Amino acid sequence: MARPEFIENVEQLRALAPIATAPIRRHVFVCTGKSCSARDSADVLEAFENELRERGVLFGREAKGKNPRGSIVVTSCASVGFCSIGPAVMVYPDGVWYAQVRSSDVAEIVEEHLLNGRVVERLALMKVPCEGTGEVGSGAEWEV
Amino acid sequence: MARPEFIENVEQLRALAPIATAPIRRHVFVCTGKSCSARDSADVLEAFENELRERGVLFGREAKGKNPRGSIVVTSCASVGFCSIGPAVMVYPDGVWYAQVRSSDVAEIVEEHLLNGRVVERLALMKVPCEGTGEVGSGAEWEV
Repeated sequence: MARPEFIENVEQLRALAPIATAPIRRHVFVCTGKSCSARDSADVLEAFENELRERGVLFGREAKGKNPRGSIVVTSCASVGFCSIGPAVMVYPDGVWYAQVRSSDVAEIVEEHLLNGRVVERLALMKVPCEGTGEVGSGAEWEV
Repeated sequence: MARPEFIENVEQLRALAPIATAPIRRHVFVCTGKSCSARDSADVLEAFENELRERGVLFGREAKGKNPRGSIVVTSCASVGFCSIGPAVMVYPDGVWYAQVRSSDVAEIVEEHLLNGRVVERLALMKVPCEGTGEVGSGAEWEV
């Protein structure tokens, strides 16, 4: 594929970027790295999509049952260093990182956090930006 | 693999999560969806890793030349609806979405934005949360 020209015009760019047209409030990332996948992160990702699709707030194509004016975008991502305690789910711009998320937890995260801004504390492990805790434990697994 | 037990103890969890030990300031996502990949997003991802590794701030394993106490984490992600104007790069928790990023732009984004908090306006197209612009343009490509 030929390298496309760099487009300077901002209005033209926005017309080409479906997500720029939507009132996005939150972006959810579900890790589908090796360790999280082994702990069923694909099910967690699907649960987020289903739950948000049912509520009509999942950003995406109408042809996929999503909403081009949806307020929440869901994306899979690669490993983030939560390998021993996945599946990892990150909610931005809040910066909240959830650990050990199961598909049965998703409705609560959607209702409480994504729609009402209340962090689900029992699953939240850190918030970015953060200070960090120091030493890496000896049982830690790494992919990154 | 047997489903691991849910770990209740927060200190135990943090010891198992290398990233929880680091003073993370920013999280960079580079889209490696189909369209962005066709526009060399793998090179953009590698450029971020190289640039940040050289500066000693890339979070990750020492065995990979990264820093377990690094302040910036870099992760690839799936399509985000910027398919026509990729590669897309998102910087959180700032919520800044860059479009049309080339590997030659990466040093500037690192120096200006990631290390000094100044958004590179010529490449920034939106900021989450956002209001959205309304209608999707007719030339838009979609993967999401």
